[in-house]
Amino acid sequence: MKFYYSPGSCALASHVALEDVGAKYEAVRVNFAANEQRGAAYTSINPKARVPSLVTERGVLTETPAILAFIAQSYRQARLASLDDPFAFAEEQAFNAYLCATVHVAHAHRMRGTRWVDASDEAALAAMKRKVPHSVGDCFDLIERAMFKGPFVMGEHYTMCDPYLFTIAQWWEADGVKPERFPRLADFRARMEERPSVKRAIAMEMS
Amino acid sequence: MKFYYSPGSCALASHVALEDVGAKYEAVRVNFAANEQRGAAYTSINPKARVPSLVTERGVLTETPAILAFIAQSYRQARLASLDDPFAFAEEQAFNAYLCATVHVAHAHRMRGTRWVDASDEAALAAMKRKVPHSVGDCFDLIERAMFKGPFVMGEHYTMCDPYLFTIAQWWEADGVKPERFPRLADFRARMEERPSVKRAIAMEMS
Repeated sequence: MKFYYSPGSCALASHVALEDVGAKYEAVRVNFAANEQRGAAYTSINPKARVPSLVTERGVLTETPAILAFIAQSYRQARLASLDDPFAFAEEQAFNAYLCATVHVAHAHRMRGTRWVDASDEAALAAMKRKVPHSVGDCFDLIERAMFKGPFVMGEHYTMCDPYLFTIAQWWEADGVKPERFPRLADFRARMEERPSVKRAIAMEMS
Repeated sequence: MKFYYSPGSCALASHVALEDVGAKYEAVRVNFAANEQRGAAYTSINPKARVPSLVTERGVLTETPAILAFIAQSYRQARLASLDDPFAFAEEQAFNAYLCATVHVAHAHRMRGTRWVDASDEAALAAMKRKVPHSVGDCFDLIERAMFKGPFVMGEHYTMCDPYLFTIAQWWEADGVKPERFPRLADFRARMEERPSVKRAIAMEMS
């Protein structure tokens, strides 16, 4: 398999999961600074011009929640998801959908505002940036208070939710959100940083 | 089961799927005009103050992509998802993640802009609204051109992607997007409108 990522992006979640399960894959960096994600070579792989993309022998997979569930299903012995329990699996998937469609989206208004307003509208782009510490902060308040079971997202067992939450929690400081506001999540983030799969994925992306 | 929805919302996707599989459930309307989704009664069910919520005997499930996969897994005989084929299932899930995190989000900038800018910033809210026909239109261009296989989203077989795409395609006119721009998707939408499960779910929501 080939795994396309950009450092600092949400692709880290799938990257960590690939390391968790011991998958054989080649990691390929997409150079966002050079706008490589919009070039013909990459959009022939992923016409959405986003990362991550996972190229398998069957074809290309995109979207973090889908890739995480795919990794969990393809490497069942790693037990990254409750595959045989529809309710528990749905809880895990719902958590990841919230990260994808609400938390990541709130964050994206800091740097990707031109998705939603005209690129020439600097006042609107600035208005979006100003709200990010609040909107992202509110999301993590809810996760801290009502969603995170601890010590991992779903409780005692590490699941496909954990590398994804860890990845988005990496953005706190840049988003203007203070880690001290979320004591349980800050502890989680610190423990995740010590995890060998996380260290390997980050080392690969930063090398 | 109890299924909480608001008419005209993305909850229709799960509602149609519940009808597709012949589930036994009670449909409960959440009155958004009265801001009922933010009241204590509803936030004790779903602290995100959103619909849909599906209350099962095991607990509450939220997020359309997770609920759709749950319905597919709980009613396997209806074959709403490729549950035994991790790659095909991931393709279905990736499509739904795109609807949830990109297409629905683009649409939400028309009416829910205060999620991402201060509610008093009328210029920024107007800037967001102006972009919606373009951002939503671009999403559906991509779906028409590169993602929709036809006659259903994933080809010959109806899957959990179809009620979700149908639901979001219901918003074209209000979003300022012309259906003629997407001949394959417009044909799909017209065929879905004739589907008994779609008719039943819409009739329930409009009654």
